[in-house]
Amino acid sequence: MVLESKIENDIKYLYFNDKASLNAISSGDWKSLKSEIESFEKSDQKYLVIKHINGNYSAGAQLGENINSLMEDVSNAAETLWNCKKPVISLVNGIAAGAGSNMMLLSDFIIATPETRFIEVFVRRGLVVDFGGSWVLPRIIGIQKAKSLMMTSNEINGTELNNLGVLHKLCSFEDMDKEFESLIESLNKQSFISICMIKQQIREGLDKTFSESLDLETENQNKRFLHSDAAEGMSAFLEKRPPVYKNTLDE
Amino acid sequence: MVLESKIENDIKYLYFNDKASLNAISSGDWKSLKSEIESFEKSDQKYLVIKHINGNYSAGAQLGENINSLMEDVSNAAETLWNCKKPVISLVNGIAAGAGSNMMLLSDFIIATPETRFIEVFVRRGLVVDFGGSWVLPRIIGIQKAKSLMMTSNEINGTELNNLGVLHKLCSFEDMDKEFESLIESLNKQSFISICMIKQQIREGLDKTFSESLDLETENQNKRFLHSDAAEGMSAFLEKRPPVYKNTLDE
Amino acid sequence: MVLESKIENDIKYLYFNDKASLNAISSGDWKSLKSEIESFEKSDQKYLVIKHINGNYSAGAQLGENINSLMEDVSNAAETLWNCKKPVISLVNGIAAGAGSNMMLLSDFIIATPETRFIEVFVRRGLVVDFGGSWVLPRIIGIQKAKSLMMTSNEINGTELNNLGVLHKLCSFEDMDKEFESLIESLNKQSFISICMIKQQIREGLDKTFSESLDLETENQNKRFLHSDAAEGMSAFLEKRPPVYKNTLDE
Repeated sequence: MVLESKIENDIKYLYFNDKASLNAISSGDWKSLKSEIESFEKSDQKYLVIKHINGNYSAGAQLGENINSLMEDVSNAAETLWNCKKPVISLVNGIAAGAGSNMMLLSDFIIATPETRFIEVFVRRGLVVDFGGSWVLPRIIGIQKAKSLMMTSNEINGTELNNLGVLHKLCSFEDMDKEFESLIESLNKQSFISICMIKQQIREGLDKTFSESLDLETENQNKRFLHSDAAEGMSAFLEKRPPVYKNTLDE
Repeated sequence: MVLESKIENDIKYLYFNDKASLNAISSGDWKSLKSEIESFEKSDQKYLVIKHINGNYSAGAQLGENINSLMEDVSNAAETLWNCKKPVISLVNGIAAGAGSNMMLLSDFIIATPETRFIEVFVRRGLVVDFGGSWVLPRIIGIQKAKSLMMTSNEINGTELNNLGVLHKLCSFEDMDKEFESLIESLNKQSFISICMIKQQIREGLDKTFSESLDLETENQNKRFLHSDAAEGMSAFLEKRPPVYKNTLDE
Repeated sequence: MVLESKIENDIKYLYFNDKASLNAISSGDWKSLKSEIESFEKSDQKYLVIKHINGNYSAGAQLGENINSLMEDVSNAAETLWNCKKPVISLVNGIAAGAGSNMMLLSDFIIATPETRFIEVFVRRGLVVDFGGSWVLPRIIGIQKAKSLMMTSNEINGTELNNLGVLHKLCSFEDMDKEFESLIESLNKQSFISICMIKQQIREGLDKTFSESLDLETENQNKRFLHSDAAEGMSAFLEKRPPVYKNTLDE
């Protein structure tokens, strides 16, 4: 078990802390990951951050362990992460491989260094892409680039990830904390319930038709009109001052 | 009510003309927008153009107005625009924000200046993305870039829109009329019914499986084989001359 | 009939060899194409390569021929190509137009020269996009760029294709054989059954919800755990040596 968590103010951090294995994820960690996300969902914390440690993000699943029912745990963790209602941020440096590469892709915001090493490593090991990667990568970078990366296991770095449109921000290792704070500061200025409902609309919209997606937008917007954040947003706009939002998830 | 329309030859122009509000759209305009599109559909005009005026495209929905049933009108207008059978072109300069930003995205061709200011502004106002934006933007620029723009309300300019693959053409304000004429000239050389059926195939294909989409292509192509435009296309090809198409929508 | 095939080692090559027509595909070729792909599927060959000849890839369907039931044959060939379980590679130079442009897009890997001339030519001929192009192109380059190319028939070259994220590799005509060999060498190092199952996951995942796609990943990965390639992958990893895979398609 290598998963560690830390809470600072309204942010929950997760790390796969195992230097020797480049932060490989042990078979027992998948259930922990799921329950860490679930406890975050129920908490007052606003942001979930999966962060590099020891110079790496994560090398993915530890090989060579007991695999009884492992895949069910892996996929349950992926589904819980993807369906997380609140923003998920990945801070990436060094190795992001296998399930580690796809955990990164299921995040809402990815900040990474040029030294990031992204590898969909599965074909090298006689395995298939998991943790949702075969669904999500073509919807981020298009079918052709996704096939290239997943069917060859070619490694790309942070600069290439940025050129493919994967990153929220590419920055040096030295600047990462600053860029992360800047993102949090920017998100904190917005209505938190709006951010979370838009995340829901994007996520569910990917599995909906245009018309169904429009229905969800309509339903969510009508709920907004009854919420104090929308009233505050309108007042602030008319009074030309920054809004002060509740920053809670009560709808 | 700020929506104005103008017809020149076979082109219908729409403007949200309200300089003081940067062309914000009033609550009464949504029904007008829908009926303007519907009358365009039934007319002999070939192209619908939503154009900047007073230095801006549109700031989106006017805040502070009566919102009774507003969202139904907004979403009905979005659905009518998206389902428009004939080509829709947006000529964009200055502010394209909120519903204005998404109206632009529902167009088939976007020509914009570097001075364009694209803002998915909803989270700043305690609202959620509407007018189809949460469905369409991830399918234009990928999930990650769509989340970045919609969950932070970060502003980007025309050059950045172009780098993300959103634009048909980036050009200076001075060159916009020329670029627009060049697009119309290029479209006028093609079979108009072909253009419209391909638009249908792309639109419906996004909600279909590969196999279902292939069925629609087959059905449409078989209709083409019976149409005079296909005969003219073949003759022109064999005679090495430009084709002269009917440019009507009779199937 | 212009379709020719050649088998070298574990690679099957297809060419549309008709210099005068820039390798246009005759009405009888569609059924041949389908049966060539089907015999490849049943064979021991690992890679299907559709290759330029006479300086061009393919100008698409021959115009001016008997079209009785033609579209059914075209779409059956497209469906068979898209569903091909093993990797499909296109080596492209010169003209890739009409059904030729879309045949290229249904390949898993596209290697092309800067002199490639990609044209979704249908609107020029009074026809509609076929061979799956209206479904696949928006999922490779996004809705807006796909509409631009398909609704105007604008021609783009290999460099532009590469900038749009369509290519596995852009290279000079002189380097193409070397780049192709390098791709095959890279694929040969991986588990072949893994490559093919990942191709299946990507293809089917495009028509599935996130959750359904995760189920397929889980099912496929559990099959991997029972296969000798996964055991060999793990041993090789632990022993820090290159793996030696079976390279067969037995599951």
